Amino acid sequence: MTRLLTPAPLTPKGFSPFGEVIDTAAADPLLINQGFASRFDDLADIDVEQEGGRPCLSIFRARARAFPLAITMMERHPLGSQAFMPLSGNPFLVVVAPAGDAPPFEGLQAFLAGPGQGVNYRRGVWHFPLIALHEGDSFLVIDRAGPGDNLEEAELGEATARIADPGA
Amino acid sequence: MTRLLTPAPLTPKGFSPFGEVIDTAAADPLLINQGFASRFDDLADIDVEQEGGRPCLSIFRARARAFPLAITMMERHPLGSQAFMPLSGNPFLVVVAPAGDAPPFEGLQAFLAGPGQGVNYRRGVWHFPLIALHEGDSFLVIDRAGPGDNLEEAELGEATARIADPGA
Repeated sequence: MTRLLTPAPLTPKGFSPFGEVIDTAAADPLLINQGFASRFDDLADIDVEQEGGRPCLSIFRARARAFPLAITMMERHPLGSQAFMPLSGNPFLVVVAPAGDAPPFEGLQAFLAGPGQGVNYRRGVWHFPLIALHEGDSFLVIDRAGPGDNLEEAELGEATARIADPGA
Repeated sequence: MTRLLTPAPLTPKGFSPFGEVIDTAAADPLLINQGFASRFDDLADIDVEQEGGRPCLSIFRARARAFPLAITMMERHPLGSQAFMPLSGNPFLVVVAPAGDAPPFEGLQAFLAGPGQGVNYRRGVWHFPLIALHEGDSFLVIDRAGPGDNLEEAELGEATARIADPGA
């Protein structure tokens, strides 16, 4: 049976089983640079050192998804965290399941990242690939480079869930 | 004598003594996520492991600078690199001097980061603090957290240089 996932607003508490929300809402900034910058410090647990790994900074440029979107597979990175920060400020969707979960992903949840919000997936957390809502949106990505197989995919025979158009 | 610095366009070659330019111009992307994303991979040397350091992800929210801007000090991080990526896509200015340079910074240079460009300062490279051109612009910053003193500042008795208004 296909579930219909309704994206929830992205909040630190709601997303805490899966990782961190990257934004300026929860943190008290430090005033630096002679008052010319506020530093919202250390917002994500960048966990990339397993088995000789190192931090890797990349840019993902996305194609917009079509809705309703069928969740036919999930992936996870067993050796490192993965952070996504939109460079457009535009909202995007995330679909996740806890690290210990297994297909058909009973714990599947969808979140709508609001303007200026990013996410950091904890090591091993199942997630659907990038779901951009605007064609060509770019994201800064901080994940792991290094030896070992850091990508595991679970194909689902048929869609486990479906997401309605968040703009509808 | 005060020098007048004219910001040069930010290019990988011109910036190479100081670190990397973070953008999608030079890299050939990998097609991932069933074709829904292009990955411009591993764009900066995130060098944060000295003396027990770890990667730290933060957001800086900046006040706009007034011009002409006097360069009265410089700073450097002897234990780690520091990457700045604008979350607005707006241009910003960087003022740098090579890692081995000393006050009054004979090698001082200014660059104008264009739309969608970021920078990664190599460990030990002298730089002026964040120079935003638009009030409230935010930047994703990847630098080092950990033990040890990772901030060194050089105060200049009088301005070594001055930058004209890049919008003038």
